[in-house]
Amino acid sequence: MTMMTKKGIWARIMVAALAVAGCFVSEGANYTQWVNPLIGSAGDGNVWVGASVPFGMVQLGPTSVPMEWHFCSGYNRSDSTVIGFSQNHLSGTGSSDLMDVNVMPVTGEVKYARGTVDDPQSGMWSLSDRRREVAEPGYYKTYLSRYGIMAEMTATCRVGLHRYTFPASDDAAIVVDLESGQFDHATAGYIRVIDECTIEGFRFSDGWAQGQRVYFAAQFSKPFRSVRLIADGKEVPGAKELKAMSTYGRFDFVTAEGEQVLMKVGLSCTSMQAARMNLAAEMPGWDFDGVRAAARKQWNDALGRIEIKTADDSVKRIFYTAMYHAMIAPFTVSDVSGSYRGHDGKVHGNPGHRTFTALSLWDTYRAWHPLMTLIRPEMVPEMVNTMLDICDEQGRLPIWPLYGCETEGMIGYPAVPVVADAVLKGIKGVDPERAYAAMRKTAMGNDRGLRARREYGYIPCDSMMRSVAFELEYDLADWAIAQVARKLGKEADYDYFMERSRGYKKVFDKSINLMRGKDSKGEWNKAFDPIKQIHFGDEFCEGNAWQYTWLVPHDIEGLTECFGSREATIAKLDSLFEITGDLGEEAAPDISGLIGMYAHGNEPSHHVLYLYNLLGEPWKTAERVRQVLGTMYHDDPVGMEGNEDMGQMSAWYIMSAMGLYQVEPAGGKYVFGSPILDEAVLKIGKKKFRIVAHNVSAENKYIKSVKLNGRAYDKWYITHEDMARGGTLEFFMGGER
Amino acid sequence: MTMMTKKGIWARIMVAALAVAGCFVSEGANYTQWVNPLIGSAGDGNVWVGASVPFGMVQLGPTSVPMEWHFCSGYNRSDSTVIGFSQNHLSGTGSSDLMDVNVMPVTGEVKYARGTVDDPQSGMWSLSDRRREVAEPGYYKTYLSRYGIMAEMTATCRVGLHRYTFPASDDAAIVVDLESGQFDHATAGYIRVIDECTIEGFRFSDGWAQGQRVYFAAQFSKPFRSVRLIADGKEVPGAKELKAMSTYGRFDFVTAEGEQVLMKVGLSCTSMQAARMNLAAEMPGWDFDGVRAAARKQWNDALGRIEIKTADDSVKRIFYTAMYHAMIAPFTVSDVSGSYRGHDGKVHGNPGHRTFTALSLWDTYRAWHPLMTLIRPEMVPEMVNTMLDICDEQGRLPIWPLYGCETEGMIGYPAVPVVADAVLKGIKGVDPERAYAAMRKTAMGNDRGLRARREYGYIPCDSMMRSVAFELEYDLADWAIAQVARKLGKEADYDYFMERSRGYKKVFDKSINLMRGKDSKGEWNKAFDPIKQIHFGDEFCEGNAWQYTWLVPHDIEGLTECFGSREATIAKLDSLFEITGDLGEEAAPDISGLIGMYAHGNEPSHHVLYLYNLLGEPWKTAERVRQVLGTMYHDDPVGMEGNEDMGQMSAWYIMSAMGLYQVEPAGGKYVFGSPILDEAVLKIGKKKFRIVAHNVSAENKYIKSVKLNGRAYDKWYITHEDMARGGTLEFFMGGER
Repeated sequence: MTMMTKKGIWARIMVAALAVAGCFVSEGANYTQWVNPLIGSAGDGNVWVGASVPFGMVQLGPTSVPMEWHFCSGYNRSDSTVIGFSQNHLSGTGSSDLMDVNVMPVTGEVKYARGTVDDPQSGMWSLSDRRREVAEPGYYKTYLSRYGIMAEMTATCRVGLHRYTFPASDDAAIVVDLESGQFDHATAGYIRVIDECTIEGFRFSDGWAQGQRVYFAAQFSKPFRSVRLIADGKEVPGAKELKAMSTYGRFDFVTAEGEQVLMKVGLSCTSMQAARMNLAAEMPGWDFDGVRAAARKQWNDALGRIEIKTADDSVKRIFYTAMYHAMIAPFTVSDVSGSYRGHDGKVHGNPGHRTFTALSLWDTYRAWHPLMTLIRPEMVPEMVNTMLDICDEQGRLPIWPLYGCETEGMIGYPAVPVVADAVLKGIKGVDPERAYAAMRKTAMGNDRGLRARREYGYIPCDSMMRSVAFELEYDLADWAIAQVARKLGKEADYDYFMERSRGYKKVFDKSINLMRGKDSKGEWNKAFDPIKQIHFGDEFCEGNAWQYTWLVPHDIEGLTECFGSREATIAKLDSLFEITGDLGEEAAPDISGLIGMYAHGNEPSHHVLYLYNLLGEPWKTAERVRQVLGTMYHDDPVGMEGNEDMGQMSAWYIMSAMGLYQVEPAGGKYVFGSPILDEAVLKIGKKKFRIVAHNVSAENKYIKSVKLNGRAYDKWYITHEDMARGGTLEFFMGGER
Repeated sequence: MTMMTKKGIWARIMVAALAVAGCFVSEGANYTQWVNPLIGSAGDGNVWVGASVPFGMVQLGPTSVPMEWHFCSGYNRSDSTVIGFSQNHLSGTGSSDLMDVNVMPVTGEVKYARGTVDDPQSGMWSLSDRRREVAEPGYYKTYLSRYGIMAEMTATCRVGLHRYTFPASDDAAIVVDLESGQFDHATAGYIRVIDECTIEGFRFSDGWAQGQRVYFAAQFSKPFRSVRLIADGKEVPGAKELKAMSTYGRFDFVTAEGEQVLMKVGLSCTSMQAARMNLAAEMPGWDFDGVRAAARKQWNDALGRIEIKTADDSVKRIFYTAMYHAMIAPFTVSDVSGSYRGHDGKVHGNPGHRTFTALSLWDTYRAWHPLMTLIRPEMVPEMVNTMLDICDEQGRLPIWPLYGCETEGMIGYPAVPVVADAVLKGIKGVDPERAYAAMRKTAMGNDRGLRARREYGYIPCDSMMRSVAFELEYDLADWAIAQVARKLGKEADYDYFMERSRGYKKVFDKSINLMRGKDSKGEWNKAFDPIKQIHFGDEFCEGNAWQYTWLVPHDIEGLTECFGSREATIAKLDSLFEITGDLGEEAAPDISGLIGMYAHGNEPSHHVLYLYNLLGEPWKTAERVRQVLGTMYHDDPVGMEGNEDMGQMSAWYIMSAMGLYQVEPAGGKYVFGSPILDEAVLKIGKKKFRIVAHNVSAENKYIKSVKLNGRAYDKWYITHEDMARGGTLEFFMGGER
């Protein structure tokens, strides 16, 4: 006979639940102490604040009243209004959506609406007391001054757990709001009462994601005394289920002073039944502290995939916060059973892998996906196969997939470098032929300028807006396809896509040494302005000619030919950091973090500093990288000079702080920059790869020599292959070029 | 805005839940009124009585104290003791197991044990008041006299729903008993308390199924006041979880007079988490009547797959009860998510089809599986693929699979005819090459006499017991493999397996015109007795030489050659029904339903009556079939002259009542017998096939002529192909040979 002790039962229940849900928990140091989730929550970062686990379906946290650019995530330090605690949020995006199934604890009567900031009675919203706010990985707490309610929350992958501490009240309630979302509108909200502790329903909405479906199943820890369902502002007496455009449910309680009522909300994109199953699978009990501890443990493991040494605690906080921000998204979108809603609108059974959504590919193909091949290699086939499935469902690889919808956000076919990178790095679980077929099919499409590009050899600027930006993105992706074609022995395809990858040469205006729109007659765009940008109104995209001219990460030699010589190229690149000018009132707000015309706040610039190394002047890379690491990232809410963009800004920091950056869009050549960490140990699957920077300091920013596994090493980059097999890379730093 | 009315919400919730779980519900006539679940519950039938849905994982019903041959199902009219309501039961088997997770409502203190029939205080058991008992498809009710509790139950596929109506009591309780099972013993029972309404745990046991695992998750409709967990007879104070060999949990309630406490119990073979998910998926609420109605609807649809016309209400009751009994098993063993525990002991993800267990193949390959190809064609690939998966897991096709275990019950390789039948009938969803490979691999094994059989060309009776029975079963299965080989163009294999299929000729003793054991030296078994049978002690298996001599359904011409002529064969067959004799004290109890030495109560005889038709004397088939239909099946608890054997006895009735029987073990030749129904309309997938018997009556038992789709038809059988495409078969009956 075995008797388990009472102690620890809840933790074991939770760990068991989480283990089956596919989450990995390991022992280790306390990395979470270095995370400050508020970094980037003011200023330009647009990051989200709340409770989640790495890559979870649930992002449970506060949603504020304003709906503006800097409230994309639902949270911004500049405003402390709270309309409730929504179950899912985007983090660090430019566009916005989600914040479905909003939950608000209240006392007394309220108006069932979002309300406006200027009128506290216009809706349910309360102010959040910032002094009593706590944000940690996997946990969030704040005090709602209007109602005197302390709100705490934590989460598993697909279930959010709310704990509300009420004052004594005969009229306490928890309101479920299926109307409010961010930058979208509900097309249907449905609630049904299963029993006095259990409800379920859905919220369908049109927004950035069109026809988005979120199903939920929820339980209260205490039976509600009564229920009121409100359709379009009017209570429907006696209703136990309700479907309307604007749907609210109020669940009433009599509470004693300090009484806690818990609520758990399971989500699903496929059905209420699946939401119920997700809830049952991941959170059988009511052990808030156990769930919180399990979430923290998951985060700790995720953060510990890179163990760093540095005497600078500020760097430690920025680094591990970057790691944290880099692992909020993409979101698990499949149920515990594996089922998911595909881009064909249909519910699919388990495809044999977890399915993800919210892949901000135009941002993340640059540094975030390469980073994941190092610190989350087990997730790479899951992400790539998700994209290949989407290709089967919608006929091409995704652009910006969100909850089963193709938002078409941003340009190019940015899934291609990600898929190619996985194949070129030989990641197991990705079928190279299937991957290649999907890339090729996507590249041979007819929309988004592809037909004109095949006809003219470039995208004429009179055929579509953003033509040059599209052309450059296609070029670098075609280069990635070509590399895979060569690996698979498809020589004709290799030649074809390599030819396509040089299309940028046709939009390089040698008379001004800048990329420039060219029309279908071969004439240069007469309305061209090298500095001013018109958002959605010129041949670029969130950038100008100075910024886009460098978007040739795959062919720096070819670009050098455009400029005429290496010296001319370097001179032009030097001037990028010196040119100033007014971007104009119509410029995209994303163009931020400027050094001259270099815009670190937006992605097309992210590889640019490393081009100096490729051009033979690595000390300039070192100097600029140090400048950006030191001035664009801070241990402060206003800590990010640009949108986080689902982890890309943070990934740039993580890679650069270790002294590495993958410039070519795929293949695993990590170019050296200037490390700032004494040591970084990467756990790549079961292998460890140590990066040591001897004598590193603010002054000693130049790499003087390198050793790999104890031997002198004279390349200016290291390959993924060398890292993945484990070992030690030593940088010997010095203060002179 | 759409407003649903309050009315009907629960039914919709249930239907939605059931629909997703893969169950089909249609409108139709009320067939369930003709079902009397008590038929076969006394005498030799061994059928189970309780609440389930067709082919469900749950069979929720009473379990009685005695553990004897006629209590294999846990229920027999001869004893009204009830130790509780267990979640799963076998129906109509010879061997026994299951009855896991037993639940007993009580008042006052009890002894936590099964107890003995002679001492009411020796355990928890109560008498069941037979006068207040109600058994319907999907519903069971009885009154526990000892406690004054009315017990009702219904079920979905994987969840049992209990409703207990208590007297006023300060000491009411529901006891969960993880010790008791039928013919097995618990190796571990585990209970943990999640909250005051929710528990979960498991029961592991060794019995017929070794290492069987049943996980459960349960909820009460009312919070329990206190919990007591009992390990090996002793309460463990304060325990909230417990694991022991003998594990009981007592959940206490204070009840008012007539107060109802409901309990729902979800099962799984894979994990507690999956049990929770199954519970959540299939039964969100507490609507007992809704669940009961949904279960009845599922049964009604299943029964309605054959719509019959007859003026004889007794026949109607026997027929639809046979349909009911034929669709209790096999049991769904996969979770809602599709996961299941394989025969390798591992939990497997969704293989793309529902997975079944409790396939009593040696019984059911004869008439039950062919019947399913007609009335449940959609389930055939699910069953066949389940068996092919098992072959992958354990290296050969299953013999008698039970909850992830191979019990090795009975002889031959009885999955082979089932798999072959599906391929030969062209059932979609079965891969012929995969199916063939599994059959061949199974047939080329070395155990269970196969090596000796390849060496000697037959199984010598000095190499193993039951040698002749094994030989004959292998022969007919090899014939089935040969037919598939031919269909797939494997001519060498066809010849090889056809040669093997004639092995019976080597154990036919021409000197006595009976099958007989032959030893490895070629000598006939000297201890041979044509009548007396020794269970597990001679060359036969649950039968004697007279019965086994006819087990050549695949080669009646070859058998005729053994006898020397058609006339000699018929004369011998005639004498089968006239020979009498004492089977002896050591004979298997299964040999029942005797007419001479013809034993309708056991399966080896089931095709025998139809051999007359193949031998050119169809009137003798008609006479004997009418005799068996009229004397071996009754509208009465003592209504079945032999074990139901998981539907085989009932399937014989159903097929024979329509005038058809598949004699060859595979391929779809339904031989004509003597219909007793005026009309039977089979719904075969989307097609309808009508069988009309003009002028049928007790006297008019002979088929005088036949029409198919209005045209004269002169074959003595109809093919599956002809039936599956829909149409009308007309028998013109007469009173003279």
